[in-house]
Amino acid sequence: MKQTMTNLKQLIRAGRGIVPAHTVIVNGNLVNVMTSEIYKADVAIYEDTIVAVGEVKDYIGEDTKVIDADNKYLVPGLIDGHIHSECSKLSITSFAKAVVPCGTTSMISDLDEYISVSGLEGLNEIFEEVKASPLKVFWGAPYKTPYTFPQSTVSYNFTKEVHENVQKWPECFGVWETVREAVTEEDENTLGAIVEASKNRLPVFGCAPMARGKELNGYLCSGVRLDHESYDHEEVVEKMRKGMHMLIRESSVTHFLKENIRAVTEVNPYLARRVSFCTDDVTATDVLEKGHLDNLVRLAIKEGVEPMTAIQMATINSAEAYRIDHLVGSISPGRIADILFVDDINTFNVEKVITNGKLVAENGRLSYELRAPKRSSVLTSQLKCKKTTKEDFEYKVDIKDGKAKVLSMNVKGPFVRKRRDVVLDVKDGIVQPDINKDVLMVSVLERFGRNGNKSLAFCSGWKLKKGAMASSAAPDDNNIIVMGADAEDMSIAVNHLIENGGGQVVVADGKVMEFLPLPVGGIASDLEPAEIARLENIINKAANELGCELPEPLMYMFFLPITAIPDYAITDVGPVDCIALDTFDPILELMEN
Amino acid sequence: MKQTMTNLKQLIRAGRGIVPAHTVIVNGNLVNVMTSEIYKADVAIYEDTIVAVGEVKDYIGEDTKVIDADNKYLVPGLIDGHIHSECSKLSITSFAKAVVPCGTTSMISDLDEYISVSGLEGLNEIFEEVKASPLKVFWGAPYKTPYTFPQSTVSYNFTKEVHENVQKWPECFGVWETVREAVTEEDENTLGAIVEASKNRLPVFGCAPMARGKELNGYLCSGVRLDHESYDHEEVVEKMRKGMHMLIRESSVTHFLKENIRAVTEVNPYLARRVSFCTDDVTATDVLEKGHLDNLVRLAIKEGVEPMTAIQMATINSAEAYRIDHLVGSISPGRIADILFVDDINTFNVEKVITNGKLVAENGRLSYELRAPKRSSVLTSQLKCKKTTKEDFEYKVDIKDGKAKVLSMNVKGPFVRKRRDVVLDVKDGIVQPDINKDVLMVSVLERFGRNGNKSLAFCSGWKLKKGAMASSAAPDDNNIIVMGADAEDMSIAVNHLIENGGGQVVVADGKVMEFLPLPVGGIASDLEPAEIARLENIINKAANELGCELPEPLMYMFFLPITAIPDYAITDVGPVDCIALDTFDPILELMEN
Repeated sequence: MKQTMTNLKQLIRAGRGIVPAHTVIVNGNLVNVMTSEIYKADVAIYEDTIVAVGEVKDYIGEDTKVIDADNKYLVPGLIDGHIHSECSKLSITSFAKAVVPCGTTSMISDLDEYISVSGLEGLNEIFEEVKASPLKVFWGAPYKTPYTFPQSTVSYNFTKEVHENVQKWPECFGVWETVREAVTEEDENTLGAIVEASKNRLPVFGCAPMARGKELNGYLCSGVRLDHESYDHEEVVEKMRKGMHMLIRESSVTHFLKENIRAVTEVNPYLARRVSFCTDDVTATDVLEKGHLDNLVRLAIKEGVEPMTAIQMATINSAEAYRIDHLVGSISPGRIADILFVDDINTFNVEKVITNGKLVAENGRLSYELRAPKRSSVLTSQLKCKKTTKEDFEYKVDIKDGKAKVLSMNVKGPFVRKRRDVVLDVKDGIVQPDINKDVLMVSVLERFGRNGNKSLAFCSGWKLKKGAMASSAAPDDNNIIVMGADAEDMSIAVNHLIENGGGQVVVADGKVMEFLPLPVGGIASDLEPAEIARLENIINKAANELGCELPEPLMYMFFLPITAIPDYAITDVGPVDCIALDTFDPILELMEN
Repeated sequence: MKQTMTNLKQLIRAGRGIVPAHTVIVNGNLVNVMTSEIYKADVAIYEDTIVAVGEVKDYIGEDTKVIDADNKYLVPGLIDGHIHSECSKLSITSFAKAVVPCGTTSMISDLDEYISVSGLEGLNEIFEEVKASPLKVFWGAPYKTPYTFPQSTVSYNFTKEVHENVQKWPECFGVWETVREAVTEEDENTLGAIVEASKNRLPVFGCAPMARGKELNGYLCSGVRLDHESYDHEEVVEKMRKGMHMLIRESSVTHFLKENIRAVTEVNPYLARRVSFCTDDVTATDVLEKGHLDNLVRLAIKEGVEPMTAIQMATINSAEAYRIDHLVGSISPGRIADILFVDDINTFNVEKVITNGKLVAENGRLSYELRAPKRSSVLTSQLKCKKTTKEDFEYKVDIKDGKAKVLSMNVKGPFVRKRRDVVLDVKDGIVQPDINKDVLMVSVLERFGRNGNKSLAFCSGWKLKKGAMASSAAPDDNNIIVMGADAEDMSIAVNHLIENGGGQVVVADGKVMEFLPLPVGGIASDLEPAEIARLENIINKAANELGCELPEPLMYMFFLPITAIPDYAITDVGPVDCIALDTFDPILELMEN
């Protein structure tokens, strides 16, 4: 993607038909997202770039590869407008294997989970992995890390001083996920990143769920360009009336498309122009079952959006929102050759995928062997924390026996936690979790060797009847989160992760039931997507067997440290009241016998 | 427009309604170009920025100025997507006086004429003038100067090395008017500017009249984003299908809107999304008579474009094409407060103009006194060339008496010059211009003290019966161009300009008939627009009195040095064959008596 005098000259000559194309695609129906037209047009490609669209006879030389599109529809490669691929537990390589065959050829991401566990050194290693993959990543520099309020512990703090450096990198396409509270609370690092972005001509990407009225106005005054999180279509409409680009999110755990798309189908079809799609967080299971961006196109069509409009939402609209439309998002001369062969624009089955001018996937799988890179120690070092004991997960109070009224964080969906006041027994100075009252212990342990922090609190909604589960993948900090009905099992779970370099584990009766290893930074795996999906199902099933009725027990748990989710969270510094933006004491009242 | 931590915080607070607005506009009908909706909405402004749109009661403090919009339509300030304001002979200050009351609050320009006469030093002086004016200039760095092929002489050469520096300036928003030939001929400075732009995240603006098919493909492979010059609507359609943004040009001398807009009204209404407007070159007379961008909106409506769509073409579409939509182009929180009060969206009369949050114009004129800055010697130094004599404009040949067959450049419109072969008399070794055969002498004299170049050739179409006319304003080089039926009068005209520091002059029978002084760099004047228009009419009338039947005799002449115009031009290095991109000998054959 780097432009030099030499390759610029060569491209211009290729565009003029003076040097022959490497590949031409004939007999295709061009889905022209720039003009909303479909017509017969051939495409000529030189190296990774589209150099001609239309009549390409003059571009064919002796060595030109001619691909017959067999009357399929030629659609630009799809763009996921906001995703943390790490949350799928798939490494970049594995993620590409999962989504590229679905037609996703670009994603906008900050790769923040990698940064949180391995800093810029790890990030650069990931950039190299991206370059060797068929998936493009347009990187946004995280507005700051950690994202948490109050600040928790990660291996690398992304500050405004870091922004001064990284925003100059050619890989950087903007400032990522600048959350509303960080802006309106005037966080110095966040505002510093925004000021730096204006110097570096970079857009600022936002995150402002439920921002309306004056709070939205204030947020927009910071210059944030787009948002990917609206809880209903009225919120979408207000944000768009106030000048934002909107990404509709359909993740594996939050299904917003059906509701959000009403902004277009019911309120104002013209809004479609600045609506695009993202998945934010997906599981391997979900991608293998339903697809990825292609699934969003199909869902939108099902909700009454014209196929052309739905395709634009998945391609050019995202490209324009992120100001990368000179590179991707349409099949036009000068753009990167990311082209899908689709059976029909109504059914939208992606049959073949070309990225960077090469055919890379066919019939739902990569058409060549893609291997994960050898990882350096930056990404494979062990979890840096001490082994735990049962006592680490016992909540000690100043009375010996009696009752404790506690605030338990009650999960109401992956992205909502509500207050639940419960009275628990106190025995021998320890507040007892209570499976009958659906109250478990939850703890976060700092794992980067920085301070050894450990928090402890109460949670509800998971309904484990015994045992424990733990994960070293847990956005946004990726410290170890562990939850359980039994302190001993919690300790065993955490120690198993420490001994095995990270992963997810379910423990019961003192034994490990299932373990999903995540050797890449303790957050991701290079296993095949189908294998990850299989392990994911097994481990979730193990949690279900312990009594949990949630669809994704581990994922619901691993979102707990995110303080941007209302109303409660827990990080290594303690349980957090996300409205007050401060830690809180979960013990509301103690009553001695 | 510069963002700092302090003003960012203040803006966010103002947006949240924590600090009161400086101004609120109530009772307006918001023309929301982002959503194609019109509805009642109030606007709150803090300093130069829109901080709230909708309900603004909570933004009103003790000192807040409340403006009653009296049910007028609130329209974003209009954007001229491509203009050389200098060609109007109005200085920035005078130009603002002319166009801001029409609703033009932003223009995209490279200010190249100033650069050609005064280099970066002069340019920076102009930037200061812009900041003190109500008109915003989004500056594009000229892809190179001079624009000419072969290279002619200007005071300052804009090279790729200059680009490495200026593209980092905050004033720089792209690379300007990168003409097709410079790209396809692989001019080193041009390609260097493009490579530099990709490093600096800047868009490249184009200029590719009549580019089609393979030549267009090759041009687009350079990454050029937009074009402002298409000779017919089929050309518009092809360029847009290939991914370009299109600016429809309606200048004082070329009227393309009626034809170009058929791409939208007849071929594909969806194209409207990426169509915008520009005027390129306008005269003061024209602006005062017809208006400026507001006139283009009215013309488009007359051609059948929906008023909302026409307004979008004059606002948000240009802003998106140039990637300045985070600053201007819509009335949204966080954008600069450039707001027009319009009587009705169908008739589109601009009644009041707010720029940078301040009411600056009402009823067709600025509502405050705007004074031109004191000019430094960089912009007011004299023309640096020697006085001329009659002999300088006599075409000498190697025969004493006889006939000469010459190639005369025959003007067929301001932007077309065709070949005309004519046989002229040779007397005493000098080829004689011939008023009966409509052949005049034309010459360009280098005026920056660099080499004293002087060219001489023949031209037709102006039909002067006697006398001469000259101009020190003559894009793109602004050397002195002089044309006449009489060598003596030509010399007098040139000398008058040299003596008076530049301007335009008409001479007959040894006397100056009319003179329009252009003291700012020899190309512009700080006079009131009406005064410039009056002088412009007088001087054109003087040329008409000498026999010229062209509508704008001086303007038609002063475009002669532009080598991008087919088929012929003349610069200080000689007459130019614009197809061969080389100078030519205008003497085709000599026949001695």
